[in-house]
Amino acid sequence: MRLPLGAEPHYLHLMDQPLRLHYAPDNASLIVRLALEELGAPYETILVDRSIDAQNSPEYRAINPAGLIPVLETSQGPVFETAAILLWLTEAHGAMAPHPGSDERASFLKWLFYLSNTTHANLRLNFYPEKYVGDDEETQATLRAHARATLCRSFDLLEALSQDDHEWFCGADVSVVDLYVVAMLRWSALYPAGDTDWFALSRWPSLAALTRRIDIRPSVASLIKSEGMDLNPFSTPNYPNPPEGVAL
Amino acid sequence: MRLPLGAEPHYLHLMDQPLRLHYAPDNASLIVRLALEELGAPYETILVDRSIDAQNSPEYRAINPAGLIPVLETSQGPVFETAAILLWLTEAHGAMAPHPGSDERASFLKWLFYLSNTTHANLRLNFYPEKYVGDDEETQATLRAHARATLCRSFDLLEALSQDDHEWFCGADVSVVDLYVVAMLRWSALYPAGDTDWFALSRWPSLAALTRRIDIRPSVASLIKSEGMDLNPFSTPNYPNPPEGVAL
Repeated sequence: MRLPLGAEPHYLHLMDQPLRLHYAPDNASLIVRLALEELGAPYETILVDRSIDAQNSPEYRAINPAGLIPVLETSQGPVFETAAILLWLTEAHGAMAPHPGSDERASFLKWLFYLSNTTHANLRLNFYPEKYVGDDEETQATLRAHARATLCRSFDLLEALSQDDHEWFCGADVSVVDLYVVAMLRWSALYPAGDTDWFALSRWPSLAALTRRIDIRPSVASLIKSEGMDLNPFSTPNYPNPPEGVAL
Repeated sequence: MRLPLGAEPHYLHLMDQPLRLHYAPDNASLIVRLALEELGAPYETILVDRSIDAQNSPEYRAINPAGLIPVLETSQGPVFETAAILLWLTEAHGAMAPHPGSDERASFLKWLFYLSNTTHANLRLNFYPEKYVGDDEETQATLRAHARATLCRSFDLLEALSQDDHEWFCGADVSVVDLYVVAMLRWSALYPAGDTDWFALSRWPSLAALTRRIDIRPSVASLIKSEGMDLNPFSTPNYPNPPEGVAL
């Protein structure tokens, strides 16, 4: 029988304390929510109210001094950085990623870091140019144009990667890399609102197929309900109508 | 007896094939070189000749499609992304990092990702603004000013982190995080040449102390020789005079 992605070893004692996910709708926290659902890990959520800039409150800075969403409170303290949380969860559960020492570990790690420091970082340049170049709109547009070119190259590389036979990307089991990628495709299609013409998911057919596979997971049904999304939030994204909180 | 950072488990069979580090002097590859030296892992180096833009050659793109330095060729194929290489090496050796499942793993991972996608990413904005906003010098200066403010906050956070009792940062043993941080402090002091007045290592006394501790490691003696650096390359950096290749 084929073992699930990761398999042994795992460290489930780390899950003895309930997990608390600090989240905002349609923020990077959604990737962690999906991973928790896929892993069947009990957790509770705490809204970070972006309408009052709660991510910059002293209370939130105490658990993430960088002021970014999400934070996952764990038996090892508050964990921040989306990819770090994902990696830690895969290690604890022995699932959704190649485990340390296994053949695919190196390629998994290199692409996980690439997603975090290149794809995700360029999405931030595209969404929040004011944090990088201030308020001049022409300068922001220049930064955005470069970031979008990099994002297209990034999705090209991921489309090519999907053709390789990696069990942790577009494979039989869902991995944290799969979840990370479909979330970034969704945001590229939606944000900044009214300025997403550069992006067309159909340019990357394998990635588009991945979004359709993820859309029908039970984990996504839970996300849809909790964060107020329409059906098929990755293949045909719409803006959310969340029961609490705001996306931006 | 106190166990070294990481300890069991390890996967030294991954080291059966000789490691080949694709490097350029004073590039991010130096962090991997130091880690290999600290671990006592046999390796050979292959120069990436930046004077002819070799990192963008088809041959190099075949091992790292993102075109960045370093790549480490391993028994699991070519590994890119500095932090991914570091993490993979620590797992293979069971050293220089908290091992999976151990108490400090979560905090180690979150800061490793933070260094990669925030500190290192902002250094890139500061060094290569043309890649993000094109050739207009005023726009580049705006981007650099924001990146430098973020870098100062980043070093502030690391200075605060050093006050916590983490064995993997400013602790008794050298960790890959220690190496990553001192390298980024060095580059902040040197590059872009002639435009580094924003940076003063003395603002961060614990980080400065770390540079002095690392400077006297045998691994650094090897780096100095191989990449043509002066003594104390982290506490009192000077431009290198490498035996082969160029830094920029």
